[in-house]
Amino acid sequence: MKRRDFAKAALAAALLPRPALALAAPAPAGASAKGLSLAMLLYPGMTALDVVGPQELLAGLADGGLHLVAKRAGPVESDTGLSVVATHDFAGCPRAVTVLFVPGGDGTPAQMRDAETLAFLRERAAAASWITSVCTGSLILGAAGLLDGYRATSHWCVRDRVLPLLGATPVDERVVFDRNRVTAAGISAGLDFAIALAARLKGEAYARTAQLVAEYAPQPPFRAGTPAEAGPDVARSAGEILNDLVEGSVKAASAPR
Amino acid sequence: MKRRDFAKAALAAALLPRPALALAAPAPAGASAKGLSLAMLLYPGMTALDVVGPQELLAGLADGGLHLVAKRAGPVESDTGLSVVATHDFAGCPRAVTVLFVPGGDGTPAQMRDAETLAFLRERAAAASWITSVCTGSLILGAAGLLDGYRATSHWCVRDRVLPLLGATPVDERVVFDRNRVTAAGISAGLDFAIALAARLKGEAYARTAQLVAEYAPQPPFRAGTPAEAGPDVARSAGEILNDLVEGSVKAASAPR
Repeated sequence: MKRRDFAKAALAAALLPRPALALAAPAPAGASAKGLSLAMLLYPGMTALDVVGPQELLAGLADGGLHLVAKRAGPVESDTGLSVVATHDFAGCPRAVTVLFVPGGDGTPAQMRDAETLAFLRERAAAASWITSVCTGSLILGAAGLLDGYRATSHWCVRDRVLPLLGATPVDERVVFDRNRVTAAGISAGLDFAIALAARLKGEAYARTAQLVAEYAPQPPFRAGTPAEAGPDVARSAGEILNDLVEGSVKAASAPR
Repeated sequence: MKRRDFAKAALAAALLPRPALALAAPAPAGASAKGLSLAMLLYPGMTALDVVGPQELLAGLADGGLHLVAKRAGPVESDTGLSVVATHDFAGCPRAVTVLFVPGGDGTPAQMRDAETLAFLRERAAAASWITSVCTGSLILGAAGLLDGYRATSHWCVRDRVLPLLGATPVDERVVFDRNRVTAAGISAGLDFAIALAARLKGEAYARTAQLVAEYAPQPPFRAGTPAEAGPDVARSAGEILNDLVEGSVKAASAPR
């Protein structure tokens, strides 16, 4: 069996004992005759890892199609200069997908002001079962009006300052589920997000299988993944790197909509 | 400051207190007047996350250039159907790079038999300061003769069975340094690998900053990242998904070279 036939593993997983955790939710909300489908937004200046972590872990369950969507199909360059190929343009993306996904990245402020992108997200969100993001992708969802009145998270550098400007209640958690909105913290949180979402969509056995295939038993060399753990000197260095993103996001969130 | 100018953060990092851990090694072996450079191999059927995790975390220190290299420049499709754009073909890749990197994936067995790819790796390895891999990328390094007599790791599904066929001593660790060879376990181990390598290349303060920017404070929803943690039922499901990769790798490793 090849990795992209992973959906078939759901059959095997269905034979496993019933999941015990509440995380492995009831019936998959977005399951249809066509199967589960994903639309993942790509845009210039996205963080590639925000997209590729979840794509890796969720590809196998997308028996209804996995669409990498951008304004125009073709290569889209990330904020570290790696280009991922968009398979569909906005018009080519199905009207109703199970999961709508938005990544973050240095290009976030421009997307928060991009009327065409925000209109695309609002339209697809109206028919999606799950509306999701990693990192500053939640600010783009917020700019589209899709997090108004929701609990949500984002990259630590913007979470508490920018989410409230968009009507959302910031939550300092790795992955936040509020009704059908699922938002994750910065960049690498996409892995935790994808496994948690896989459990909701296909059950715990499937999610655990995806985690084992990805050998996701993390051992970070340092404790430095949050500002508190990293300490003030490292937090200051990271803050300098992220300053344009933070200030640009504040401005975009404060602009009239 | 933009994320791709992250190398400049090394200046700030240099002002921080000297790293205390042994991990933050002595002088960067591959530093040259041209700066640090990376060559990351892409091939059909690679696992995209194997590449994109390290690319995200190491891009900022590659002030001497980050080359995404394939037989032909242009889009290269992963084993879950996501295409990453190769920026250089083999001929266009510099002769001497600081870090040579090989990802794993379902396409591994084909690369283990690909004379042109193996010759490319041997040539570039001769001048590289660090010869590295994530996941089954170590089997490709091994097929090129580059792990003979070295301690190494790989994805759990092939580590103990295939590495010895290539002259390497398998080690059940997340990231294995042996002289200038650095090999990592499956897929998601690329994040731990990249932070550990960043510490060797640029010091602990730089590595910790990269970790904080990526908000790498993992919280996997389950304990299922190793066969022992996942348990026999999930390990069996994952084993079925990975069976073609395992058997193909055994055959390729057993072929005369």
